[in-house]
Amino acid sequence: MPGEFELIQRYFGDRAQTNLRQEVVLGIGDDAAITSIPEGLQLVTTTDVLVEDVHFPSKTSAADIAYKALAVNLSDLAAMGADPCWFTLTLSMPTADTSWLQEFSEGLFAIAESFDVALIGGDTVRGPLVVGIQACGLVPQGKALLRSGARTGDAIYVSGTLGDAALALQCLDGVIQLDKEERAMVMQKLNRPLPCVKQGKSLRDVANSCIDISDGLVADLNHVLEASRVGATVQQDDIPLSAIYRKYMDKIPNRLSAITSGDDYELCFTVPLNRIAILDGLVKNKIGLFTRIGTIETEPGLRVCDTEGNVISIGQFGHDHFHEASNY
Amino acid sequence: MPGEFELIQRYFGDRAQTNLRQEVVLGIGDDAAITSIPEGLQLVTTTDVLVEDVHFPSKTSAADIAYKALAVNLSDLAAMGADPCWFTLTLSMPTADTSWLQEFSEGLFAIAESFDVALIGGDTVRGPLVVGIQACGLVPQGKALLRSGARTGDAIYVSGTLGDAALALQCLDGVIQLDKEERAMVMQKLNRPLPCVKQGKSLRDVANSCIDISDGLVADLNHVLEASRVGATVQQDDIPLSAIYRKYMDKIPNRLSAITSGDDYELCFTVPLNRIAILDGLVKNKIGLFTRIGTIETEPGLRVCDTEGNVISIGQFGHDHFHEASNY
Repeated sequence: MPGEFELIQRYFGDRAQTNLRQEVVLGIGDDAAITSIPEGLQLVTTTDVLVEDVHFPSKTSAADIAYKALAVNLSDLAAMGADPCWFTLTLSMPTADTSWLQEFSEGLFAIAESFDVALIGGDTVRGPLVVGIQACGLVPQGKALLRSGARTGDAIYVSGTLGDAALALQCLDGVIQLDKEERAMVMQKLNRPLPCVKQGKSLRDVANSCIDISDGLVADLNHVLEASRVGATVQQDDIPLSAIYRKYMDKIPNRLSAITSGDDYELCFTVPLNRIAILDGLVKNKIGLFTRIGTIETEPGLRVCDTEGNVISIGQFGHDHFHEASNY
Repeated sequence: MPGEFELIQRYFGDRAQTNLRQEVVLGIGDDAAITSIPEGLQLVTTTDVLVEDVHFPSKTSAADIAYKALAVNLSDLAAMGADPCWFTLTLSMPTADTSWLQEFSEGLFAIAESFDVALIGGDTVRGPLVVGIQACGLVPQGKALLRSGARTGDAIYVSGTLGDAALALQCLDGVIQLDKEERAMVMQKLNRPLPCVKQGKSLRDVANSCIDISDGLVADLNHVLEASRVGATVQQDDIPLSAIYRKYMDKIPNRLSAITSGDDYELCFTVPLNRIAILDGLVKNKIGLFTRIGTIETEPGLRVCDTEGNVISIGQFGHDHFHEASNY
């Protein structure tokens, strides 16, 4: 079995060297990496850790685990309006399984290269399977999108469509049966979510608050409301649902799963009314699909209304690793 | 049991807010943190992960685990000559044990505050006990100390003394019996190593290569030799040993443990002969205790010589998590 240093070099170091950005002065191989931050830009930093049987089922492929570990971090950077640049990896794994590592590194570099982010450092150790990533991006000074900028009267939007990840979880749990092609499609959305990097960057001068939907729209929009000290009303009928979710939604026990289940990695953001025309321009130019779902209000709390305008009771406010059993 | 978000806020978020540096524009609480890098400085980034029963015995106190997790990262920054500034934390733990978290956060902020580094982000999840830290520092452009700068003729130095961590491990394994006070002293060195931040910064214009001794002098000096494409001869008699290590060294089965065992977190660095006077000045001004142990040579490989000038055979080249059984 190869040693730790050799492993890191073979599966991560060599490939990382071909993947460097101009800001990276020194990548993997020393005590630390060195990067340069161009003048006028601020550094945006996020970190997320994925644990086997908590964040992914143990049967998940190494490539999908690696892909998602980086994707969820890039999604956080997208929600800040940042341009992802580099990341570090901490990998704890029970054995130095070379075929697993090969697959893992392929999944990792597949997404890293498609978003032009460089692996600049890492630590590989023996232990239970735990994958940690810390990712950095850059944003023009003062242009980052925070959770705290929403104001009364703003329109609330989400990018893309919601529900595919919820459907995939129902499918994994055996609650819903999909045909092979449909199953592959929703599993792709669950295992390889596409971070809304381009969309986030386009919103820098449009949105005044933003968050990525990792814990479910209800939970994440609530974070925005709390940080901004406002409330909101959202129209359930306006939530953009994918075609496949619409097809199966009647069979999902939780009728609100599209807004209470996590893992969609779309963006939820608020836009002052006088900037809606700019947003419409982004949609027209196919920068992103953005759908208005509600309005920011002074009264605290989140109200989700049905077609008749009645407030729906929502008992479950998203995913909390210590509050509830995992979906897996 | 409190929920994840509440936990993070109570044990990390609130205290982190009082601990911010001026470079930190936005700390914990949004999708990502925002920092500003002053002009003329480069960012230095490192990451290390600690796993229960691999990097620390399961009986280690939460405060010591937290302290060491940050200390080993600060040691990497010290080896680059960087000024540590901020860090992120990924914490996977089996249960949300509030007294454990309280103790952990105390150990973490004890070292964070003493080195003026800010906690800017993190992720707390349910899973096996795995602690990941990613730390960043700043260094004037082009002044970072790399492993690759050693040249033939340079003098090789180490900071402080070696051997206490090796002695602590022997003590934990029951091989050596120390009295209570001695045991407390070496356990302190093992569990709460003091990163050589001040020393590393002082070496920016003196040393031409540097590494921290985490895997043992032999293994780590070898990294410098490989990166610099040189060799070296080290005099065993010149290795600076602590008083307590000298007292017990005859009882340690591995006579080379001070140079082959890890966890000392001192610096090993090389100095061109024409800068030795500057280094002597640093020692005189008590910036650091630096001891010359050998010389860089053209012939590849590391030769450790005994008093008679004979090369000692060294079978074991430091710690490798996948090559050898853990000490714990």
